[in-house]
Amino acid sequence: MILIGERINASRAPIKAALEKRDAKFIQDEAKIQADAGCQFLDLNCGLSIETEIADMEWLVGIVQQVLKIPLCIDSPNPAVIEKGISLCKAKPLINSITAEEARYKNIILVAKKYNSAIIVLTMDERGMPETSDDRFKIAKKIFGILKKEGIEDGDIYFDPLVRPISSEPKQASELLSSIPKIKSLGGVKIVCGASNISYGLPQRSIINSAFIAMAIKEGLDGALVDPLNKRVFSAIRASEALLARDNYCMNFIQGHRKGLF
Amino acid sequence: MILIGERINASRAPIKAALEKRDAKFIQDEAKIQADAGCQFLDLNCGLSIETEIADMEWLVGIVQQVLKIPLCIDSPNPAVIEKGISLCKAKPLINSITAEEARYKNIILVAKKYNSAIIVLTMDERGMPETSDDRFKIAKKIFGILKKEGIEDGDIYFDPLVRPISSEPKQASELLSSIPKIKSLGGVKIVCGASNISYGLPQRSIINSAFIAMAIKEGLDGALVDPLNKRVFSAIRASEALLARDNYCMNFIQGHRKGLF
Repeated sequence: MILIGERINASRAPIKAALEKRDAKFIQDEAKIQADAGCQFLDLNCGLSIETEIADMEWLVGIVQQVLKIPLCIDSPNPAVIEKGISLCKAKPLINSITAEEARYKNIILVAKKYNSAIIVLTMDERGMPETSDDRFKIAKKIFGILKKEGIEDGDIYFDPLVRPISSEPKQASELLSSIPKIKSLGGVKIVCGASNISYGLPQRSIINSAFIAMAIKEGLDGALVDPLNKRVFSAIRASEALLARDNYCMNFIQGHRKGLF
Repeated sequence: MILIGERINASRAPIKAALEKRDAKFIQDEAKIQADAGCQFLDLNCGLSIETEIADMEWLVGIVQQVLKIPLCIDSPNPAVIEKGISLCKAKPLINSITAEEARYKNIILVAKKYNSAIIVLTMDERGMPETSDDRFKIAKKIFGILKKEGIEDGDIYFDPLVRPISSEPKQASELLSSIPKIKSLGGVKIVCGASNISYGLPQRSIINSAFIAMAIKEGLDGALVDPLNKRVFSAIRASEALLARDNYCMNFIQGHRKGLF
């Protein structure tokens, strides 16, 4: 599993405070914790204010790369912020994200090509969030064609089929799960998602999230945006890898246990 | 999900002691806890000694039925013990278990017919435990034919495809999971299993067991032998039902949370 650490996000109060104070050590510690836990990418989101976001991203990328060589996932709705972040990355990065809306993909594809970045593609378009697995597949197919025409490699395309809450729409878990093999039929693309939306509005959300991530990994999920300090979800991911014989001698699982991550 | 409470088993020291002391209250409390948690069957196993097992089963069935109307799952390798237990059941019971070995099914099928009992069928035969999902399917198909010829209804056949540890055989989880739809293709049969063997030899076994049960429910598992007081596994089952839209308004999940079962 490709784990994208999601903790460095300005929507979390301690990160917002650290950004405002330019507290490099706090951010660097958050980065190290996630890298040590086994994340392959660190998501960086600094969406505090439109005015400062470019400068904030420049600072974030710089201080994280002072202490780690881990690839970064540059997370912003603003193409200018993405370009700034991506242009500074030393290891091959990941753009988070584009959609199948022309305004959301046109410039970003150029950035991806210029800096050889991979891209997370949300399966949504002008009509909004998809309902069914077929909706997700159709949108994925459309943007896949555009990306291929632009010369983006399959392996650099990470589709996020957009998890929606079961509390309001009970079939959304099944729809998302069945979209995974459908979208993967397009080629050598990867599927990633964040699990936590699935349990919005329910109690003890980590229980739902961890059962859901186990099912999604079984269906072919390649990666996830995760908080590796959420013991329940993180241990469910490691357990799922062991169960599907993707963890030789269960060593990742056993090491997670020994490191106190579960 | 059909939950078969597994706590009343003589391999657990407190149950062994209660059987020896004829401590009816202790057993009845164990029964009530499991029924309250939502089990549809209670497994009764009293395999302490060959000499006393028939008398022990007679006592167990009697005292549980003094306080509960819940169907029982009569669990013994000894056909005489099974017949004694089944003959005393007031609600339609479940036999645990037969295999595809003639010595293990011949008399038991007669007992099932005589008392209108359902049967758990382990997918093993004279050659021992199956390795692959195809092995499991072939054995299931053979004994399914025999059971149908004897007039047993599909809905009374509960196949247990035999969970084996991933620590020694990494592909066993995948083999078991893919056996579920294969065996269900036989007809209206049910699939049940106990999850815990999957994690034999590994640390923090409930983490593995709960990820596994979520995947198995997604593949079509109909029921499980469970300890409903194992919060991690029990909550994963309830979460899986909610995720697959088998729990209206997530009420079973929410009630499990409110009852402190998670």
